[in-house]
Amino acid sequence: MLQPLVSALQYHTLSRPLPLWRGGALSSVTVAYETWGTLSPTRDNVVLVLHALTGDSHAADPHDPDNPKAAWWNPLIGPGRAFDTDRYFVICSNVLGGCQGTTGPASTNPETGRPYALDFPVITVQDMVRAQRELLTALGIRRLAAVAGGSIGGMQALEWAVRYPADVDAALLFGATERIGPQAIGFNAIGRNAIMLDPAWCDGRYVPGRGPDAGLKLARMVGMLTYQSSEGQWLRFGREPASRPTSPSPLGEKFDIEGYLEYQGRALARRFDANSYLYLTRAMDLYDVAEGWESGQAALPRIQARTLHVGMSTDWLYPPEQVRDLAQKLHALGKDAVYRELPSVHGHDAFLKEWPSMARIIDDYLEAPRALLAVEETGQQATTPQQAS
Amino acid sequence: MLQPLVSALQYHTLSRPLPLWRGGALSSVTVAYETWGTLSPTRDNVVLVLHALTGDSHAADPHDPDNPKAAWWNPLIGPGRAFDTDRYFVICSNVLGGCQGTTGPASTNPETGRPYALDFPVITVQDMVRAQRELLTALGIRRLAAVAGGSIGGMQALEWAVRYPADVDAALLFGATERIGPQAIGFNAIGRNAIMLDPAWCDGRYVPGRGPDAGLKLARMVGMLTYQSSEGQWLRFGREPASRPTSPSPLGEKFDIEGYLEYQGRALARRFDANSYLYLTRAMDLYDVAEGWESGQAALPRIQARTLHVGMSTDWLYPPEQVRDLAQKLHALGKDAVYRELPSVHGHDAFLKEWPSMARIIDDYLEAPRALLAVEETGQQATTPQQAS
Repeated sequence: MLQPLVSALQYHTLSRPLPLWRGGALSSVTVAYETWGTLSPTRDNVVLVLHALTGDSHAADPHDPDNPKAAWWNPLIGPGRAFDTDRYFVICSNVLGGCQGTTGPASTNPETGRPYALDFPVITVQDMVRAQRELLTALGIRRLAAVAGGSIGGMQALEWAVRYPADVDAALLFGATERIGPQAIGFNAIGRNAIMLDPAWCDGRYVPGRGPDAGLKLARMVGMLTYQSSEGQWLRFGREPASRPTSPSPLGEKFDIEGYLEYQGRALARRFDANSYLYLTRAMDLYDVAEGWESGQAALPRIQARTLHVGMSTDWLYPPEQVRDLAQKLHALGKDAVYRELPSVHGHDAFLKEWPSMARIIDDYLEAPRALLAVEETGQQATTPQQAS
Repeated sequence: MLQPLVSALQYHTLSRPLPLWRGGALSSVTVAYETWGTLSPTRDNVVLVLHALTGDSHAADPHDPDNPKAAWWNPLIGPGRAFDTDRYFVICSNVLGGCQGTTGPASTNPETGRPYALDFPVITVQDMVRAQRELLTALGIRRLAAVAGGSIGGMQALEWAVRYPADVDAALLFGATERIGPQAIGFNAIGRNAIMLDPAWCDGRYVPGRGPDAGLKLARMVGMLTYQSSEGQWLRFGREPASRPTSPSPLGEKFDIEGYLEYQGRALARRFDANSYLYLTRAMDLYDVAEGWESGQAALPRIQARTLHVGMSTDWLYPPEQVRDLAQKLHALGKDAVYRELPSVHGHDAFLKEWPSMARIIDDYLEAPRALLAVEETGQQATTPQQAS
């Protein structure tokens, strides 16, 4: 059951049905995952890395380690890197409800022999974490040296620390809050409506590979626009004319931002399942760390892990103030919670782009957390939540 | 030609073709307008009011003056109000390219006898202003005591001051900048893509009244979400379940913000033309005050009017900082430009919601502009741009 140094996609089928947070169960769940590094004899060196909305298990690519586009956290995972595979056994699985190897709406429903489509049950962040837990248990892993993720991946990291408090040493959350607000829910809803407006969606019963590409493209355009900052878009695109091919327009030449959004939209439509997009955005909407505990105040006190909360300075979708609020709440509860703000023009996406800053923050935190409280060589002072302005 | 006290919709057909800023001409243009108050014998008391994207000429409703929903600036226009119709002759026309009486894509193309649809030429803010100028000339009006508008209406007010500098005494701009940036262009593009994704759009050749309602609804959902602030949405909707009827969902109960956006989307689809939405959002994208002058720096120095620039404190689509920047530029050029920030949780839409604040700002400015530089009874200090923080 121990995994040697591997980097290829592996599959594990859970040995029992997965009961679901909002009721019902999935009778058969397969989880796709990848690992990097070597599990220590005492199994105490595991780092679970959690991908964002449209990510997958391919967090690192040892065959192309210096290409940031070859894997979504490629510059952060590897020998000598922030998540040092000479030291840690790093594992990343595709989320429940996803479409890159783990069971989701495009998977075959064993009851019908056809894709689940909308017969797939509503899933939650809690269910994603439970599936990850089942996978780790099957791999003989009980304890996590660290769990880390951004956006909905950060929500999963938080849920890990709440749900399995004795088994998580450190949780690293990037651009993640306890719950999202109405604005973020609204943008997710617009994306879902775009998919469902596409006649090729067919109430979810499209033939895999012949789905609502135009609707999914539009949903991605909404997402990409919100993951970035106005400042960053001014710097990169300004009001320049489109430098990429664009779809035909009755209204004259398009702007560069339009060409960029269309390019990103087409790219996602080629690799992602539209129904998965519906279910995963809904899971994000539904997540509330307080849900299911005896009182709204009972969840956070459960946490035993030390936690790092990183806000992206120009993130308006998951504002750094809200990321800091969570750190402050935990600190007020006597927890070992640290807040850092990552200065960036890249908005929410900064945790997927600011490699040197991300590496330094993670490295500092995993290696010598107390050092965070000292003045750094950059002149930036890390803060406890109370000190943060 | 002089208009008595009237409040009903009137129509004027321009006596000559309207040449267009980006080339070509419209051979026949009708402008729908309404007026309130009485034109003075010297015709020196005219206030031109300019509506926002989906607005119309019905800025005030003397038959239902205390209902803010009966007309879009109803609480600000009337006897004794900020735009005092005992003193001013107030006029508001539907914009060129609109669908509420003025020639637009749904109008009959005289060359074909059918609606223009996509044969309608690309129009710009400059063209809107030119059509307004033609209307006023026909009404015997040359000079404006004030021109006022919010959002794209504010852009038109700015264009008036640049294009006809000798004929504008004061320009009042609410939530308006010299040009919009890539983020706002991106949201407009997403709205347009939503309309064009709806199979009922039919490349723009839908039968009037049987158009792409679902697409236009989705476009409006995008717009409404961006016109409001995250703070305001938290206060009003939070994460509460939908309190309004919602479209069917495969993903369980919706949130209140979703029901609200759907409600607003349906409301617009009932009253607005989808092709108009395409053309008007494009006009907003294309507007750049500098365009067409010998150098990028030549436009603003032309202004002779005194100008008021009001930023909405929580407007992230047209940020108050950018509104202030324009005021600062004008001030640096020696112009009489004043910046005010309107504190509100209502985001960009604050100029359509914060009635007492709006009334006070307009009233102060029109009655005694210098008083703005004094400390007000609220303790708030109005500022010249340099003083603004």
